[in-house]
Amino acid sequence: MKKVAVLLSGSGVYDGSEIYEATFTLLALEEAGVDVTCCAPDIPQMHVINHVTGDVAEGESRSVLVEAARLARGEVTDLAKLSEAEFDALILPGGFGAAKNLCDFAVKGPDCQVEPQVAGVVEAFHAAGKPIGLMCIAPAIGAALFGGKGIRLTIGNDADTASGLQALGAEHVDCPVDEIVVDENNKVVTTPAYMLGPKMADVKAGIDKLVAKVLEMA
Amino acid sequence: MKKVAVLLSGSGVYDGSEIYEATFTLLALEEAGVDVTCCAPDIPQMHVINHVTGDVAEGESRSVLVEAARLARGEVTDLAKLSEAEFDALILPGGFGAAKNLCDFAVKGPDCQVEPQVAGVVEAFHAAGKPIGLMCIAPAIGAALFGGKGIRLTIGNDADTASGLQALGAEHVDCPVDEIVVDENNKVVTTPAYMLGPKMADVKAGIDKLVAKVLEMA
Repeated sequence: MKKVAVLLSGSGVYDGSEIYEATFTLLALEEAGVDVTCCAPDIPQMHVINHVTGDVAEGESRSVLVEAARLARGEVTDLAKLSEAEFDALILPGGFGAAKNLCDFAVKGPDCQVEPQVAGVVEAFHAAGKPIGLMCIAPAIGAALFGGKGIRLTIGNDADTASGLQALGAEHVDCPVDEIVVDENNKVVTTPAYMLGPKMADVKAGIDKLVAKVLEMA
Repeated sequence: MKKVAVLLSGSGVYDGSEIYEATFTLLALEEAGVDVTCCAPDIPQMHVINHVTGDVAEGESRSVLVEAARLARGEVTDLAKLSEAEFDALILPGGFGAAKNLCDFAVKGPDCQVEPQVAGVVEAFHAAGKPIGLMCIAPAIGAALFGGKGIRLTIGNDADTASGLQALGAEHVDCPVDEIVVDENNKVVTTPAYMLGPKMADVKAGIDKLVAKVLEMA
């Protein structure tokens, strides 16, 4: 049985993991008979967004790990305790949390830094030749870490975001929501998900293809 | 195009709506070509549960409406502004929020009360002869409101919970996770979802059947 780690960034599109993307990822992995471990770093969120108003909830603070546990029905591993050696592949759903908590691409663009624990784990999977799936805005982490290796990826077709990734050294490929872009050399699979949307079924189709390709490469 | 209201109770299995149940409900409705409105009452959650430890997060307070917006990507209607007349059916996903925020069955069992706004809306759909779908523990709301009409429903096969619903006047029918129970007279459809689980695919199969039956009755 293959083992896959799913790296979450909270729970909610504007400050954490995009909920539908994470759910469809976990469903596709379960349907493929994979043993799944959800994980997240035990760090504070960059901020909390009121998802009704879109405003920052001043004075509120939430843990990425504790909120990610909502998406995993309580079963979430502290990223600091995750060993790449136990897994065959790594998948990161999107949502702003990937670009606010796991790295700071949402605020710093091509000057972004990847959160150190996240960088360590993603680089470990890459160094071990294990496939990595990145969806929505999570490819920003791939660009930040592997831009120097000319990583080939997609975030859909948003020109500003794509140019930010290209400034990090990545090759951006436009891609429809229900498709994937595969970098065979770097073993990285990407899909636009809610960078495009808007239909859940199309987002799910892209994620299903991403999961299938990641498992094929594992 | 049919219009369906989905009534949420927060976001997270232990204090709000069960995330996968809500996601699968919204996906099934989208795939059926339905116009969906997510809604939730603008009230405080009974409490906030740390989903890593399972403990109450002392001193924390969250709004059912604001947290529900996470599940709806920001598009959620205040239940106080929802008019039954604009919709063909109503569906309530489960999660403890349905039994803690929408009613208090989780703490009071058969002595529970349904939150007044929730009771008003659910009773309005029922009085108008419009179908209602209830999953997981949400049938407790159906039992509390329509026990006097001998409502026929399921929460799976948990004897203690079933006896609580029977004490409210409901007829409980044991049911596997991937099936539904239909009360044709009261136009109420129920499925056990995460009262049983544990496989996402089985929960989704039950929800798909619930949504199909609710739309058929609408």
